[in-house]
Amino acid sequence: MLENLKKVVFEANLMLPKYHMVTFTWGNVSGIDREKGLMVIKPSGVEYDTMKAEDMVVVDINTGKVVEGDYNPSSDTDTHIKIYQACPEIGGVVHTHSRYATSWAQARRDIPALGTTHADDFYGGIPCTRAMTPEEIHGSYEAETGNVIVETFKERGIKMMDVPGVIVYSHGPFTWEKDPIAAVKKAVVLEEVAFMAYHAMTIDPSLTPMQQELLDKHYLRKHGANAYYGQKKK
Amino acid sequence: MLENLKKVVFEANLMLPKYHMVTFTWGNVSGIDREKGLMVIKPSGVEYDTMKAEDMVVVDINTGKVVEGDYNPSSDTDTHIKIYQACPEIGGVVHTHSRYATSWAQARRDIPALGTTHADDFYGGIPCTRAMTPEEIHGSYEAETGNVIVETFKERGIKMMDVPGVIVYSHGPFTWEKDPIAAVKKAVVLEEVAFMAYHAMTIDPSLTPMQQELLDKHYLRKHGANAYYGQKKK
Amino acid sequence: MLENLKKVVFEANLMLPKYHMVTFTWGNVSGIDREKGLMVIKPSGVEYDTMKAEDMVVVDINTGKVVEGDYNPSSDTDTHIKIYQACPEIGGVVHTHSRYATSWAQARRDIPALGTTHADDFYGGIPCTRAMTPEEIHGSYEAETGNVIVETFKERGIKMMDVPGVIVYSHGPFTWEKDPIAAVKKAVVLEEVAFMAYHAMTIDPSLTPMQQELLDKHYLRKHGANAYYGQKKK
Amino acid sequence: MLENLKKVVFEANLMLPKYHMVTFTWGNVSGIDREKGLMVIKPSGVEYDTMKAEDMVVVDINTGKVVEGDYNPSSDTDTHIKIYQACPEIGGVVHTHSRYATSWAQARRDIPALGTTHADDFYGGIPCTRAMTPEEIHGSYEAETGNVIVETFKERGIKMMDVPGVIVYSHGPFTWEKDPIAAVKKAVVLEEVAFMAYHAMTIDPSLTPMQQELLDKHYLRKHGANAYYGQKKK
Repeated sequence: MLENLKKVVFEANLMLPKYHMVTFTWGNVSGIDREKGLMVIKPSGVEYDTMKAEDMVVVDINTGKVVEGDYNPSSDTDTHIKIYQACPEIGGVVHTHSRYATSWAQARRDIPALGTTHADDFYGGIPCTRAMTPEEIHGSYEAETGNVIVETFKERGIKMMDVPGVIVYSHGPFTWEKDPIAAVKKAVVLEEVAFMAYHAMTIDPSLTPMQQELLDKHYLRKHGANAYYGQKKK
Repeated sequence: MLENLKKVVFEANLMLPKYHMVTFTWGNVSGIDREKGLMVIKPSGVEYDTMKAEDMVVVDINTGKVVEGDYNPSSDTDTHIKIYQACPEIGGVVHTHSRYATSWAQARRDIPALGTTHADDFYGGIPCTRAMTPEEIHGSYEAETGNVIVETFKERGIKMMDVPGVIVYSHGPFTWEKDPIAAVKKAVVLEEVAFMAYHAMTIDPSLTPMQQELLDKHYLRKHGANAYYGQKKK
Repeated sequence: MLENLKKVVFEANLMLPKYHMVTFTWGNVSGIDREKGLMVIKPSGVEYDTMKAEDMVVVDINTGKVVEGDYNPSSDTDTHIKIYQACPEIGGVVHTHSRYATSWAQARRDIPALGTTHADDFYGGIPCTRAMTPEEIHGSYEAETGNVIVETFKERGIKMMDVPGVIVYSHGPFTWEKDPIAAVKKAVVLEEVAFMAYHAMTIDPSLTPMQQELLDKHYLRKHGANAYYGQKKK
Repeated sequence: MLENLKKVVFEANLMLPKYHMVTFTWGNVSGIDREKGLMVIKPSGVEYDTMKAEDMVVVDINTGKVVEGDYNPSSDTDTHIKIYQACPEIGGVVHTHSRYATSWAQARRDIPALGTTHADDFYGGIPCTRAMTPEEIHGSYEAETGNVIVETFKERGIKMMDVPGVIVYSHGPFTWEKDPIAAVKKAVVLEEVAFMAYHAMTIDPSLTPMQQELLDKHYLRKHGANAYYGQKKK
């Protein structure tokens, strides 16, 4: 069942330790088959070096129930589902506790767009969600985490594919993209820009975001109809 | 004598260089056999890459004397003993000079609970002990180090299994758990949260600890009767 | 065509991941054949671990057009060209988003010359360019990036071979040297001095640049007619 | 000639890249044969991965002249000589540009003794030398660097074997010990304590040095007549 997607999700999960995004089992990647309404996600708490592609768990995107798999799915499954439901272009979702991005989440601050490294992949600052209410935390916590992510983008008027990542208040980063591998790459870039923003802001705490023109230029030379970076146009 | 425990303690000690917790021989792990009243601990000042399981030293937990072993036990032996004596659920103890946790110890400050990475493993801030008195330092220093750790938890009303780690004032971290491998994992997590707290606090020095509800939620979804993280419930 | 130069440029590009200067494909090295008026540069967006010497792209230094190659050249090609045109001694140019140098670029500040590590390779602080105007960004952006680099050195009266590197405002570092391998080494040194300047300045934000005499001594014992470092004079 | 010492000095030099103490060729180790009045030191500017034991250079400690060797000796040779001449117990000297220690040198500040990691190897803060005068820089610069190191210890009344390292103002660290291997270990410890002091001081810039009793306890349990750390007493 969904052998190809399982293989892709498995390989995307293995990219997390490769790029130093995770300690122990702290991270998970999922992918979606929108036609079948099914999501494939890492099992909860399983070690990366013994994990196999067939250990990936298949979950119904509408009911949240496990359809196939020997293990429990990631405890963050319901957060992934809310993200997929909010934006039909999303094909892969990643959660990590990568060190610098999580430090920003703990500082409860947006990661400002300060340079072209940021602008090449994120069309503006990475938002930090609001604190969750006690009711949200005591309720369906993981689903509510997804709701507060989606709310953040709606209230700020940011398209989820323009800024394909968020940091959850006192928690850590989620990223998404058209497929699981691309979503992991965004998690790596988010960690890089979190590193750079940390160091730039501690050199000068009064820094303001980069010029809008430069943000536009770098984002749009890699995304959209007029992109000219890489080998795409050849 | 205690061949299995020696093997476990040996393997737990080798996890220290694997997870970049130690430079040279700066760290030690012990395990306990409570029925026999014996502790197995790393020998003092022996290199990790030449050390063998049979080099582990067996110490009587009541007298502090070496019962078996070709080497002197770790110079921190008496600190380990005091920790085991204070809490019967502890099965393994670890001491390191891991870089960020030790930096907090040198700053003489508790590591505040600022996010879910912390809350997943520690049910509140990591306490920093008080300064030791000249009498304690000139006396049975290593035993007194253990006493001041135990005192810190008693005076603050923290259960040692709820917050399985401490940073000793101007010194460095100790962690503990139900067995030696689990105690090393806690040492790794402590270093991660020390990293994240450092960076969050230098972004915003006025940060307050995380919400109690979120701390409860994350700690209790992995610990205690209502835990649902991982594969345990399946 | 230019097989030797392609091989050198290829090897210089592989030094970027070796020295941890790049994430994914974020960096490029070029070399020039001044007699033929041709530049060899990394293709745009191609992965380092699959790239081959024959993938290098040959570009006419006067027209900016591709003369040979299956791929698009690096999107920064026109910046490289402007740097070569400004200084006839330059034989190799490097662009990276190395982490500390880019953090300084995002902080929009010169990297001050604070020690002999800096003085051994750069004869003074590493300048940060001015912000580009909206017109420059909307125009021939990559060529204008090169123009603002060249302008910075002219306006400040710095010889490009004395300070063989720059950080572009809100962007990142470029370095150059007599050949591509030497230019990559300068990129590595620039990252080191960016690291050290960051940490020195956060220990003491009021630090002033190093003494002129010490800067002179270290730069001139490795460069110019009276150099005596290494094996050159034997 | 001095084959054993050459081998030891060679191996000690290879420890520098192993412990991430150097970039490129930025570092050197020497050893001394006091009876013969000869010093063996790394050649200047030679790569670590091609260097051989027989490339080590033999220098007369009294005249500073090369006695044997195909290469020029390290450009820091005269600094090493001054250190050997100042203290007859020194058997090995190391110079690096390790990142955190050099950052402190660039900040022109002593590295304060803030914890037991420091006290285990250095009996007090690591002194930063004064700025050199223009005359010293223009004169026999490398010898004068050694003179200012020796002066620092004399003026402050610190024994060179009690605090076996220094950071040279706007330059970087030197360490020494009874033999070349032990001197490299001190360079590694110096870098660790520089890391920890940096992070502790940026958490709390008002930190004062550690208690004298704790400094005494840790230093003296590893050094001198009453030492009891490790396997020495068995």
